Amino acid sequence: MKGKIIGEGSQPLICTPLVGKTNGAILAELSNILIKKPDIIEWRVDFYEGIGNIEEVVALADQIKEIAADIPVIFTIRSIREGGQPIALSDIEAIELNAAICSRTNVEYVDCELSNLPEHFEQLRKVARKNGKKVIASFHNFNCTPSRDILNQKFTQAELYGADVAKVAVMPQTLEDVLTLINVTLEAKKRLKIPLISMSMGGLGAVTRMFGGVFGSAVSFAVGQSSSAPGQVPIEDLKAVFSIISRSMGE
Amino acid sequence: MKGKIIGEGSQPLICTPLVGKTNGAILAELSNILIKKPDIIEWRVDFYEGIGNIEEVVALADQIKEIAADIPVIFTIRSIREGGQPIALSDIEAIELNAAICSRTNVEYVDCELSNLPEHFEQLRKVARKNGKKVIASFHNFNCTPSRDILNQKFTQAELYGADVAKVAVMPQTLEDVLTLINVTLEAKKRLKIPLISMSMGGLGAVTRMFGGVFGSAVSFAVGQSSSAPGQVPIEDLKAVFSIISRSMGE
Repeated sequence: MKGKIIGEGSQPLICTPLVGKTNGAILAELSNILIKKPDIIEWRVDFYEGIGNIEEVVALADQIKEIAADIPVIFTIRSIREGGQPIALSDIEAIELNAAICSRTNVEYVDCELSNLPEHFEQLRKVARKNGKKVIASFHNFNCTPSRDILNQKFTQAELYGADVAKVAVMPQTLEDVLTLINVTLEAKKRLKIPLISMSMGGLGAVTRMFGGVFGSAVSFAVGQSSSAPGQVPIEDLKAVFSIISRSMGE
Repeated sequence: MKGKIIGEGSQPLICTPLVGKTNGAILAELSNILIKKPDIIEWRVDFYEGIGNIEEVVALADQIKEIAADIPVIFTIRSIREGGQPIALSDIEAIELNAAICSRTNVEYVDCELSNLPEHFEQLRKVARKNGKKVIASFHNFNCTPSRDILNQKFTQAELYGADVAKVAVMPQTLEDVLTLINVTLEAKKRLKIPLISMSMGGLGAVTRMFGGVFGSAVSFAVGQSSSAPGQVPIEDLKAVFSIISRSMGE
């Protein structure tokens, strides 16, 4: 794998999403985003109108990967139950599309939600492993922040499932919720052997996108051209804050 | 009182310290700092070589206040037991010097450590009240971060003593300590009627100087010319981060 690897390096990686609907929009977004030099790019395929045609998706994934060059690409079909767009694919069809991406393209990461059936998750994990690709096991809650115990369970489940990266993104209702997410992140960071990604969403949680790296989150999602979730910070701002944090902590 | 008031406004105030030893050094530092437009200035009088002469201190406090104009000034004699410089004054002499500042100058705030005898604290509080000045009750630990209960007690004690502002500054040994300070800050913010200031010091705690305001800290101490405690961030950096946090949370 070329480029930066999630969980390595001293600063969190900055990932910007592609959320265009058409080939043209996605490629235009990609070239706008590349100018801003993100560390990773996430293609949110649930936004793509061609998602129903596996050949089109594979071809576009290849094209994105070729243009992104050394910048790793995450292929993500976010389900509607975890905050994604409505799509025509069933869960198993989405797994199969992910598997095709693993076996037929050079995309480095696929995202697989923990809400999938364990056998579906295992099916994708095997294909990914065989093809040298990595699986990000993810959990999202766009309404609230579940308890500390539940969030800890999600991280543990990701590791038990054999994922390469564990991701938890939840919505805070209060500042206590924001602190719950940060506390759990630090606990999971110490417990897990795999890298993790966490964030508290929305305006209230926006600080976790800036300071979460200090407490163990390996990636922060930032706005390149358009945001893919509430509370994302523009990439320029995130880079400025990361560099100030790094200077301040390196005394 | 002109200028900004601790605990008012939506962003934390930025306070820069004056740590010069001589009148000349302090006045030069002051003019360098004013260019950077801090919200408050703290004169750390324990660094001043003239601290033993009450008339000199009063005269210089007046001069600093006149030059600072609308920017409020905090007069602080940090004791050696709480991380200050060695000085020739006893605790009661330090209280008397603080009282003279309250009654004879236009300085707006005096800092009084909670480790003072309660009767000394009360003596200063009365003089401050009578002269329309505010007392910041402070607690520092430069070695470690005491337990959540002890830190909560310090905030409560400050309010019980009749202080106008409560300040807690502690040194973390771990990231858990940094989170303890943030958790306590949010708890105290909800419980106390007076504004509070908190920070986790050193490189590890530097992030609390940047995002502590989100969780309830009303002031962040920043480096204008020289730092007065480990982990302080340059004022330019702090302003940049505050403005990014404010934009990100204001969606």
